[in-house]
Amino acid sequence: MTLALTAAAFALATAWAQTTAGPAPAKPMTMTDVLAAASASDWRTLDPENTLYLELDGGRRVVIELAPAFAPQHAANIRTLAREGYYDGLAIVRSQENYVVQWGDPNGDDEAKAKAPKRGKRALAPEFVRDAKGLAFTRIPDIDGYAPEVGFAHGFHAARDPKRGEAWLAHCYASVGAGRGMTVDSGSGAELYVVIGNAPRHLDRNITLVGRVVQGMEHLSTLPRGTGPLGFYEKPEQNVPIRSIRLAAEVAAAERVKLEILRTDTETFTKLVETRRNRRDDWFKVPAGHVELCNVPIPVRVPPNP
Amino acid sequence: MTLALTAAAFALATAWAQTTAGPAPAKPMTMTDVLAAASASDWRTLDPENTLYLELDGGRRVVIELAPAFAPQHAANIRTLAREGYYDGLAIVRSQENYVVQWGDPNGDDEAKAKAPKRGKRALAPEFVRDAKGLAFTRIPDIDGYAPEVGFAHGFHAARDPKRGEAWLAHCYASVGAGRGMTVDSGSGAELYVVIGNAPRHLDRNITLVGRVVQGMEHLSTLPRGTGPLGFYEKPEQNVPIRSIRLAAEVAAAERVKLEILRTDTETFTKLVETRRNRRDDWFKVPAGHVELCNVPIPVRVPPNP
Repeated sequence: MTLALTAAAFALATAWAQTTAGPAPAKPMTMTDVLAAASASDWRTLDPENTLYLELDGGRRVVIELAPAFAPQHAANIRTLAREGYYDGLAIVRSQENYVVQWGDPNGDDEAKAKAPKRGKRALAPEFVRDAKGLAFTRIPDIDGYAPEVGFAHGFHAARDPKRGEAWLAHCYASVGAGRGMTVDSGSGAELYVVIGNAPRHLDRNITLVGRVVQGMEHLSTLPRGTGPLGFYEKPEQNVPIRSIRLAAEVAAAERVKLEILRTDTETFTKLVETRRNRRDDWFKVPAGHVELCNVPIPVRVPPNP
Repeated sequence: MTLALTAAAFALATAWAQTTAGPAPAKPMTMTDVLAAASASDWRTLDPENTLYLELDGGRRVVIELAPAFAPQHAANIRTLAREGYYDGLAIVRSQENYVVQWGDPNGDDEAKAKAPKRGKRALAPEFVRDAKGLAFTRIPDIDGYAPEVGFAHGFHAARDPKRGEAWLAHCYASVGAGRGMTVDSGSGAELYVVIGNAPRHLDRNITLVGRVVQGMEHLSTLPRGTGPLGFYEKPEQNVPIRSIRLAAEVAAAERVKLEILRTDTETFTKLVETRRNRRDDWFKVPAGHVELCNVPIPVRVPPNP
């Protein structure tokens, strides 16, 4: 017999085809129950102004949601770079096991050959943290070693330090950030990385996160690992070409991906977190009584037909 | 310029070619400093009786260390299955994004076609936890939401509950476990899974971990994701053939991988953990003051020439 590891798997980035609520589910609920009972208002649509399509060869599309509430200057710069076609023809140059995939200008080290943005910038002031004031933050009660408080804000995994009055995005699987050099103001979004391994939370507050991949992670996580230091590809022919990065707002409506994201500031989401904290599926024998921030999935679905 | 994300990357499963200690490093130390200063006795060799070679096509070899201190019955059964060639010709049948890769008998659901082990068993009593008594446990002080205490035992990421007198292996990236069905005694090691995503610690104490991959994770983590439920491949031709799984003790010495693992019960390892808790590399601006258990790498090296 082929044994399923778990009856209710970690369903990150799964499209939920069904939303019709069935009969009232018996308590305790599983994640499937919670999603089945969710109402239309529990879901939000992606804002085309905050959505990027990273297009690779073979029709592979990666959908990224930007987080302007945390990195407004970087988000604006990335929009500008996408609109002017800066990323088109660049490449994925790094794939490091259990860490990150990164892309940018393969000729970036050679000032003579480097691609110069027209209006976009190649260096920006850091946006490692933001003022916690004015930020709607849905805290989860679970302890965390990297931050006094963790939870969700604007639909992203986030952390908060009330004493310092700061909030920031947390480095989770699928988080997208702006690569930088040794100085804090050397990033801009012209180079971007995506987390493909265990949550590297030590990077929090040390580099600017700009958003997260909401669909297509498998196109990045399965790329061959680079054999150079830090997982950089050693030969130019190993680089993975980027056809384009487009802002969804610049793409014809018919070519946009129709996706909805589960809101993180609702009673439904609170229930979902509880189903991850204490698994009630029959397969589980010992509920954990805890959920690590990055182990909370933010479900994505193809919206049902109107 | 091509920006390195971080100057001292998470170097899991990197072969450390250099061991000659240089001049006494200035404090605070980085992980590179700690490894450079390590002595020969800080390293241990893999026991061929506890080492598996999973051989895939194209010369891709995955090296797994078994953990008989935690799962003695499963380790013994896996040794028996490997010795009798049970795994040879089976396949990787599942690759689930941000979760696990799993292998076993693709015909396992069809009793008529299923491969029957000769002496190995297809079901065993669970080994989810063990008695904490008699287990040398190197605790780290960092808080953890999934267990009262975390640290290392026999070279593996582990957890402990003093009140219950129990210890168990923690589900980290590269952990290897025995797939099971709905009943706790339906696993045996005839089917195995490897974690390829964010640490799924909620599986702790719910399934038997048997060891971890110490080299070759990239051959598993980059496999195409299955598109069926739970990441199972939907067509037989998508299955990834397993040439063989051999116990290193059964392989001619010349064909064995020469690897050493950093011991986890030493002053050197305690220093290494501190370099992960508070990054002192120039690139970092804010040390985390904490390290999540699974973010502590257990370095592997090719031993220096005698």
